[in-house]
Amino acid sequence: MSGNTFGKIFKISTWGESHGPGVGVVIEGCPAGLPISEKDIQKELDRRRTGQSKVTTSRKEKDQIRFLSGVFQGKTTGTPLSMMVENSDADSTKYETIKDLYRPGHADYTYDMKYGFRDYRGGGRSSARETVGRVAAGAVAKKLLKRKKITVVAYTKQIGPHIAKTIDLKEIEKNIVRCPDKKMAEKMIDHVMKLRKRGDSVGGVVEVLAMGVPPGLGEPVFDRLDADLAKALMSLPAVKGVEVGSGFAAAELTGSQNNDAFYSKGGKIHTRTNNAGGILGGISTGEDIVMRFVVKPTSSILKEQETVTASGEKATIQVEGRHDPCVSPRAVPIAEAMVALTLIDHYLRNQLSQVDKIF
Amino acid sequence: MSGNTFGKIFKISTWGESHGPGVGVVIEGCPAGLPISEKDIQKELDRRRTGQSKVTTSRKEKDQIRFLSGVFQGKTTGTPLSMMVENSDADSTKYETIKDLYRPGHADYTYDMKYGFRDYRGGGRSSARETVGRVAAGAVAKKLLKRKKITVVAYTKQIGPHIAKTIDLKEIEKNIVRCPDKKMAEKMIDHVMKLRKRGDSVGGVVEVLAMGVPPGLGEPVFDRLDADLAKALMSLPAVKGVEVGSGFAAAELTGSQNNDAFYSKGGKIHTRTNNAGGILGGISTGEDIVMRFVVKPTSSILKEQETVTASGEKATIQVEGRHDPCVSPRAVPIAEAMVALTLIDHYLRNQLSQVDKIF
Amino acid sequence: MSGNTFGKIFKISTWGESHGPGVGVVIEGCPAGLPISEKDIQKELDRRRTGQSKVTTSRKEKDQIRFLSGVFQGKTTGTPLSMMVENSDADSTKYETIKDLYRPGHADYTYDMKYGFRDYRGGGRSSARETVGRVAAGAVAKKLLKRKKITVVAYTKQIGPHIAKTIDLKEIEKNIVRCPDKKMAEKMIDHVMKLRKRGDSVGGVVEVLAMGVPPGLGEPVFDRLDADLAKALMSLPAVKGVEVGSGFAAAELTGSQNNDAFYSKGGKIHTRTNNAGGILGGISTGEDIVMRFVVKPTSSILKEQETVTASGEKATIQVEGRHDPCVSPRAVPIAEAMVALTLIDHYLRNQLSQVDKIF
Amino acid sequence: MSGNTFGKIFKISTWGESHGPGVGVVIEGCPAGLPISEKDIQKELDRRRTGQSKVTTSRKEKDQIRFLSGVFQGKTTGTPLSMMVENSDADSTKYETIKDLYRPGHADYTYDMKYGFRDYRGGGRSSARETVGRVAAGAVAKKLLKRKKITVVAYTKQIGPHIAKTIDLKEIEKNIVRCPDKKMAEKMIDHVMKLRKRGDSVGGVVEVLAMGVPPGLGEPVFDRLDADLAKALMSLPAVKGVEVGSGFAAAELTGSQNNDAFYSKGGKIHTRTNNAGGILGGISTGEDIVMRFVVKPTSSILKEQETVTASGEKATIQVEGRHDPCVSPRAVPIAEAMVALTLIDHYLRNQLSQVDKIF
Repeated sequence: MSGNTFGKIFKISTWGESHGPGVGVVIEGCPAGLPISEKDIQKELDRRRTGQSKVTTSRKEKDQIRFLSGVFQGKTTGTPLSMMVENSDADSTKYETIKDLYRPGHADYTYDMKYGFRDYRGGGRSSARETVGRVAAGAVAKKLLKRKKITVVAYTKQIGPHIAKTIDLKEIEKNIVRCPDKKMAEKMIDHVMKLRKRGDSVGGVVEVLAMGVPPGLGEPVFDRLDADLAKALMSLPAVKGVEVGSGFAAAELTGSQNNDAFYSKGGKIHTRTNNAGGILGGISTGEDIVMRFVVKPTSSILKEQETVTASGEKATIQVEGRHDPCVSPRAVPIAEAMVALTLIDHYLRNQLSQVDKIF
Repeated sequence: MSGNTFGKIFKISTWGESHGPGVGVVIEGCPAGLPISEKDIQKELDRRRTGQSKVTTSRKEKDQIRFLSGVFQGKTTGTPLSMMVENSDADSTKYETIKDLYRPGHADYTYDMKYGFRDYRGGGRSSARETVGRVAAGAVAKKLLKRKKITVVAYTKQIGPHIAKTIDLKEIEKNIVRCPDKKMAEKMIDHVMKLRKRGDSVGGVVEVLAMGVPPGLGEPVFDRLDADLAKALMSLPAVKGVEVGSGFAAAELTGSQNNDAFYSKGGKIHTRTNNAGGILGGISTGEDIVMRFVVKPTSSILKEQETVTASGEKATIQVEGRHDPCVSPRAVPIAEAMVALTLIDHYLRNQLSQVDKIF
Repeated sequence: MSGNTFGKIFKISTWGESHGPGVGVVIEGCPAGLPISEKDIQKELDRRRTGQSKVTTSRKEKDQIRFLSGVFQGKTTGTPLSMMVENSDADSTKYETIKDLYRPGHADYTYDMKYGFRDYRGGGRSSARETVGRVAAGAVAKKLLKRKKITVVAYTKQIGPHIAKTIDLKEIEKNIVRCPDKKMAEKMIDHVMKLRKRGDSVGGVVEVLAMGVPPGLGEPVFDRLDADLAKALMSLPAVKGVEVGSGFAAAELTGSQNNDAFYSKGGKIHTRTNNAGGILGGISTGEDIVMRFVVKPTSSILKEQETVTASGEKATIQVEGRHDPCVSPRAVPIAEAMVALTLIDHYLRNQLSQVDKIF
Repeated sequence: MSGNTFGKIFKISTWGESHGPGVGVVIEGCPAGLPISEKDIQKELDRRRTGQSKVTTSRKEKDQIRFLSGVFQGKTTGTPLSMMVENSDADSTKYETIKDLYRPGHADYTYDMKYGFRDYRGGGRSSARETVGRVAAGAVAKKLLKRKKITVVAYTKQIGPHIAKTIDLKEIEKNIVRCPDKKMAEKMIDHVMKLRKRGDSVGGVVEVLAMGVPPGLGEPVFDRLDADLAKALMSLPAVKGVEVGSGFAAAELTGSQNNDAFYSKGGKIHTRTNNAGGILGGISTGEDIVMRFVVKPTSSILKEQETVTASGEKATIQVEGRHDPCVSPRAVPIAEAMVALTLIDHYLRNQLSQVDKIF
């Protein structure tokens, strides 16, 4: 009943803490026969890795993936695919000083309330280091989706007041904030560095596109595709909101503005606009799936903050250590992983929708 | 693997279509011994009912609840609680004319793609009529939560450009848009009626508060309380976005602005602000849980729209019939139900968090 | 977390008590497009019905099935299929006298211990009346299996000391104990009637065959086909043991006796014997699946028995009322339903085993 | 949807193959605060280990457990407990010769049918080596149960024609067949050795007792305690049948013989006999839980057997290598683990049965 499993058919279970022996993931339900290698996984892990640039934490982790089971002769066997990354740069001594302090914006207080005590070293399980397992599993999901030409791309849409105006997917990996608008990327970087110098941090918005998704994915009424994607993205550290298509802007629109007209072209049905973000009634339409989520400014800041000790005494805290001043850039590969995992799960579930396709 | 079940311990399964024999819900996992009557359920169903005012559809449904199992001598028995509402005003003849047309913004096209055919009468399963089962189950959840003084309240925060400025919970049920700001309610009503007359509709934002929630609810890393609440709310018809606490506004905030400082008062730990919306690291903090979601403008509009037939031929459509011009007001009791269901599920799950409290 | 759901993809949830308003079932995950009518269900329910003969209880129930959702134009829609049977002969007055007594062999005591109180009318939820929902759902499963020429047949193998020696499937429905050995059937009937006259009851063994099952069904290591079938059958009232293939006899066999040699015929691989009962390593081999289960003698007997009251006082009890003196005959259609439900679930799960068959 | 997870609240997922890098398990849902060390686990693994005596395989594995996550300062943290054993004696060269042959009684053929190919080294995932993970997780379950004085003990009841007549629990670990009847143990050992010399193997029956189980565990109607225990035991390699209490013998009993009379003693309700095996209506009665299961004779035998190649050609096979001539003795600790895992899961589930105990 603890919530460490995601997906119903393509099911992943992550394990591991920030400063324990390692982090990992077990994938259940990956069909047999998929060619996969540790290299396929490593590529995605390297995008998530720390120490990539001046806008990410300087914690040094190689994040070397190791397959423990489920692959034989270079192919998945249909049995659980277990993967692990050892924690190498897990110096926890600096956390000794804050082990009795509740860091504002962090899960220290709530973990203590829930479990009665906590692994205070680097946030323990609440650390974003847990997402290593998600990204590793996501790499497998991406490889499956690729067989159907489904691709998932995410990028930084906004940091502070700076919003990308042009979307050039080729730009994304060329700048350190992973923004598809070259010019805006520079402004974003300046903004982040300015705040970092002040010992502060900043929030941002990430947009995720899923292209090539066939119509039919999603399981109403609760496991709608948008509902499951919302959960997937909200389950990431620091995320405070998710929207699809026109999103919150729809509050001010009328039905005649927001409805997407259907038309037919080349024997296929499309919509003239995509305010639905590729999902109607919780089921994919075949148009691009478009989602956005907001990440709050990193909670770990050097600025002095008011807080209390575990026994309730007044205290102040300055969170030293190695922290991303803005999590958007590193949230990009993690978000892609979560969306890919959600899509492959629904792709497999949808295989069972029609009698005539099965029997 | 179809997605008609919600919750892991307090688990509900809804069934039923807009124009079939009826709609209902089976609750599994409600503990034994809760005093409950059909009246407790009816009260909530009456808030969701159609035909309540000029801003809701005129479809006439009494929505009379009937217990089918799970209650004996006025108390839950611990076995499945099955409830049903017969569909009484289920005239489907008017849907004959559109059975081959895809209504823009509706699930007609996607259901056809997924299942190979569909129940076209009133949207079949994709109809908001399905939420009768959610509200009925939510009434049971609310009764359980009440024993711990946990209450859930929702209200219309925004319709079109009109945003509530004051939050007076006593005002909510006094106006037909369920807005906690009396003055703004009038503007909202005018706005809705103006658009209705034009054959159009409008979107809105609903805010949900959960008060009295103890710290500790939520199961990281995937079943975080905010992730499950996001899924719960995104699973409602017409919802296009969800946020918690500072939400999308956090993109422009800095860590020092957004972090909530801890302080201690009367032996309890609180936060000075509540940008977290009552949830840190996916676990409740004990502060009020604050969420918002956006509903798109109703897709059924009288205005002529471009569309295609099931065979892909160009067509136009005007959706006549009985439709809410704005779904916010009726979304209020449904949202409360979904939040109550999520909370009771997590309340029960959290009972199993610590060895010393169990053994 | 209460255990009223069976299956992972083709998932059924039963509800209802012996003397409440009715009993029913919701099927989730039945693919869309299966032609189905209430008649298909009624046929199976009539086989399970009470009052069929002198060896079954005289309780009169028509068990008229009613579809509540999930079927449109004579076909399943892919949405939940809800079915219900109203309880018509639910006179509970005779249970008033035993409401504070624990009937030996029944669940009265354990339900009280678990839930704090119980619906004492006819055993409430613990009544075999609950199996109406299983048989109704099983009828749908059978119809799906039939498309692949998979059939499930059960029969009484043993009652008391009388064991069927010949297996003539055409005989089964011709005698009231559902024994495939005509001669032995008569002895069984005599045995049952003799004990009934003495106010006693008797146990029996039911054998279930599943024919036409393709190789590959079953999900090691926990959801092995035999493990799931064992659970399915052990979940039936009165069942005290389950075995597959050579079963308990294997304790005295050697490997060279018990192993089934492989051979090839007409391009297909078979085994010379079937001690495995059609399952190896938890996966179907393509040979007939052969299982047996034992039902204990009916607990409700007229003979005086020692017991206690709910408050622990010494008492005696004679259980009057309408009871089957041997449950084997009526267990036959219920067992078929459970096996069919298990097979269809695994059939659907197995659709997702190989990448090359999906992508 | 692959079946590598067991339990609903205390949930384990095993992974690993016979000749891959290692085997392991992830436990989700273990409450926080349980003192646990690798030693606690090792003790149980050592009982399961190979190479213990002349009646077990000579494969040499130290089976050294390593905690990867979920434990901090010697206590469980409430987050996933990941454990791993590296495979050290994984010489797979001898399997090269049989990689295209289907070993009778093994899962070679069925894995090929299901997954399209298989890891032929030592049976891959179908190897009993997978049970390392079960035993490791079972050790945690046992430690939790111990807090409530619930103990689980298994022993060899029968090997070939030799059936234990006396049950002296202190004898079990004193002889290499784990039989509680000292004299019969010798006969069993002779029987096994005689067959081993002939290149053959033999079956057996294991009995499991769970003592100190409180009344109330079990979740009717599908997740009855006996149904879940049956599944747990049938999911073990080589098991062909399971029974509870009077079991298959009940077929010949009458109700008056088989019913257990209730009586009261010291304020507690007991039964005079225990034909129910400690479970009524799927819920524990408080009496000892008594189950038995049969293991087939080991399929790997030196005797020449008829078989086919993967392409269907006629062949003969002699399975050389290191195999247990009778699996009963090593099934004992594995069965205890499965029963302990089932009980702790139901213990936790039962915590949520009554409103008045929760709220």
